[in-house]
Amino acid sequence: MDLNISVELTSAKKQKPEIDQLSFGKYFTDHMFIMDYDAGKGWHDPRIIPYQPISLDPAAKVFHYGQTVFEGMKAYKTAEGRILMFRPYKNLQRLNRSNARLSIPALDENVIMEALRKLVLVDEEWIPDEQGTSLYIRPFVIATQATLGVSPSEQYHFMIILSPVGSYYAEGINPVSIFVESEYVRAVTGGVGNAKTGGNYAAGLKAQQEATDKGYSQVLWLDGVHRKYIEEVGSMNVFFKVGGKVITPALNGSILDGVTRDSVIQLLRYWDIEVEERAISINELVEAYRNGTLEEAFGTGTAAVISPIGELNWQGDKLALNEGRTGPLSAKIYDFMTGIQRGTLEDPFGWVVKL
Amino acid sequence: MDLNISVELTSAKKQKPEIDQLSFGKYFTDHMFIMDYDAGKGWHDPRIIPYQPISLDPAAKVFHYGQTVFEGMKAYKTAEGRILMFRPYKNLQRLNRSNARLSIPALDENVIMEALRKLVLVDEEWIPDEQGTSLYIRPFVIATQATLGVSPSEQYHFMIILSPVGSYYAEGINPVSIFVESEYVRAVTGGVGNAKTGGNYAAGLKAQQEATDKGYSQVLWLDGVHRKYIEEVGSMNVFFKVGGKVITPALNGSILDGVTRDSVIQLLRYWDIEVEERAISINELVEAYRNGTLEEAFGTGTAAVISPIGELNWQGDKLALNEGRTGPLSAKIYDFMTGIQRGTLEDPFGWVVKL
Ligand SMILES: Cc1ncc(COP(=O)(O)O)c(C=O)c1O
Ligand SMILES: Cc1ncc(COP(=O)(O)O)c(C=O)c1O
Repeated sequence: MDLNISVELTSAKKQKPEIDQLSFGKYFTDHMFIMDYDAGKGWHDPRIIPYQPISLDPAAKVFHYGQTVFEGMKAYKTAEGRILMFRPYKNLQRLNRSNARLSIPALDENVIMEALRKLVLVDEEWIPDEQGTSLYIRPFVIATQATLGVSPSEQYHFMIILSPVGSYYAEGINPVSIFVESEYVRAVTGGVGNAKTGGNYAAGLKAQQEATDKGYSQVLWLDGVHRKYIEEVGSMNVFFKVGGKVITPALNGSILDGVTRDSVIQLLRYWDIEVEERAISINELVEAYRNGTLEEAFGTGTAAVISPIGELNWQGDKLALNEGRTGPLSAKIYDFMTGIQRGTLEDPFGWVVKL
Repeated sequence: MDLNISVELTSAKKQKPEIDQLSFGKYFTDHMFIMDYDAGKGWHDPRIIPYQPISLDPAAKVFHYGQTVFEGMKAYKTAEGRILMFRPYKNLQRLNRSNARLSIPALDENVIMEALRKLVLVDEEWIPDEQGTSLYIRPFVIATQATLGVSPSEQYHFMIILSPVGSYYAEGINPVSIFVESEYVRAVTGGVGNAKTGGNYAAGLKAQQEATDKGYSQVLWLDGVHRKYIEEVGSMNVFFKVGGKVITPALNGSILDGVTRDSVIQLLRYWDIEVEERAISINELVEAYRNGTLEEAFGTGTAAVISPIGELNWQGDKLALNEGRTGPLSAKIYDFMTGIQRGTLEDPFGWVVKL
């Protein structure tokens, strides 16, 4: 694969948004990375160019058969001006697992890492440095071949775009209310639930919309087979503290193998807190809630890092967790994770990568 | 909604492919239809323009979250030069059901029908008229809003593109070999399996690819819950003739409500052949095969109309149906359906619409 990334700088830099105007994935930086794939030729022409629209044939397979994958990661600027990323290779490995599941040709992780580094440095002045802000990085692949046969595309674009993002919560971390979904299903074992592909998110829109209408910020998905085991929340994995130990759904093939999830598990074990990865039924949680042992619940994901859950609505029953306030364990994990991500705390795991 | 469709004709007509060069969805006509949606404004600016690439922001939601739906239908040219379509309103109603499931704003079916009619007439000279050929019509919707939040888009394109297609099978109808999939799952009740959305097809690519590598032309999906009930084949519904009567999986929410399926059921009843729509386990089929009552199997869909199944591979066991030849019922249905679609047989159901 060609490691030589060409760079064409913009002649007209955009105005940067005010920090308090930032919302998730709304503004994009001055440049983007793009690389093409053609069957027989492989991935070629890696290049950084001014951020601009892309032109595709209306028959491009991405418009019809959803052959796409993506990743989401962040870069932070420290007080001393260093640029840090959190476990980027984990995301690139997952990207290739998603590619394999969606019949998309593998990417060279070292080339992508170099593309990432170069692009972030080109747009370095876009990285906000206030507490809670960061540069969100969105690598993605789309199938571009212009034929309507249902088969893997013979042409693709791999792209990276960057978006400065504000604090996920206005003031630090705040508990969210979650609706436990009993009608719609997001994914099932044997399907593509553990790949980061567009169709999984499309499949969740309607449930998410109905939950929003009822005043809930996210849905908690149950498994598609028994319709009772906890899966994940919107774009977060989920953890529960029950009777002093922490439980989280095992990676069963239908949920995403979250980088934050993996990090939190390692962190808890580092702190000598017991963690179990296993099947957890909604009944087990309701039972624990009733007998007073369900102490805390929180979601984990790149966007919010840790998102404490203040309420779970299960078929109309409202379970208030830790009296609707952020639990002490959630807060402790949040402080540690964001501290090492921003370089204000020492990183005992070697997770942080300086660009 | 604005019923006024503007028309901009191309100044450079393309060369038309030779009939024997046609393969599915490879060549496109000189024009396309496009219409936009903006929240607050609704669908607007319906227009026919020269077939051309579309330009989208790299953050357009279609590239990330798979918010797409599509339809597939055909127009035929009769010996007398009439242009016929088969039950187009059924497709447009299904399009709106898909829209609703994917949180896409509804389309006015009359406007879309008018757009279809106008576009097909503008490109009328592209409709091939040889036996077995037709003009494939692909209406589709893509989410175009350029923000990365996971929520329904506030902007869309609705488009129609046209592709002259050859006979699905070189010489009339020929039986296909089908691999019964036991590892991968396409869809599950509560999911989006009954919507015609890109993610369902992306989810099937890997199984399809593995089946192709083993020499099979399609996979037969089993249900995602019990992993034993028959669902559908690639892009076809499926029927079995067992002991004189015909059975087909019921519309359980995870399979597509095929227009051809519905038509075949009506046709069989018109012929006084008993049809059951119900759950069918793979074991029931194997059992019927063993005791000699599994007489025929065939898929139904817009592309192939009727596709007889000559072999089913279930976990290595090869079930040869009707000795691998097209069964008499499959042939009879094929002849009738294609006859009324092309206007050579009388249409007792009022299915055929003249443009
Ligand atoms: C479906 C889903 N689950 C979980 C996560 C959390 O994964 P990560 O911690 O790697 O961001 C995400 C977001 O990436 C997601 O989209
Ligand atoms: C998944 C799926 N099932 C079944 C069908 C058959 O439907 P129809 O007869 O409406 O073409 C199709 C094709 O449209 C399909 O994509």
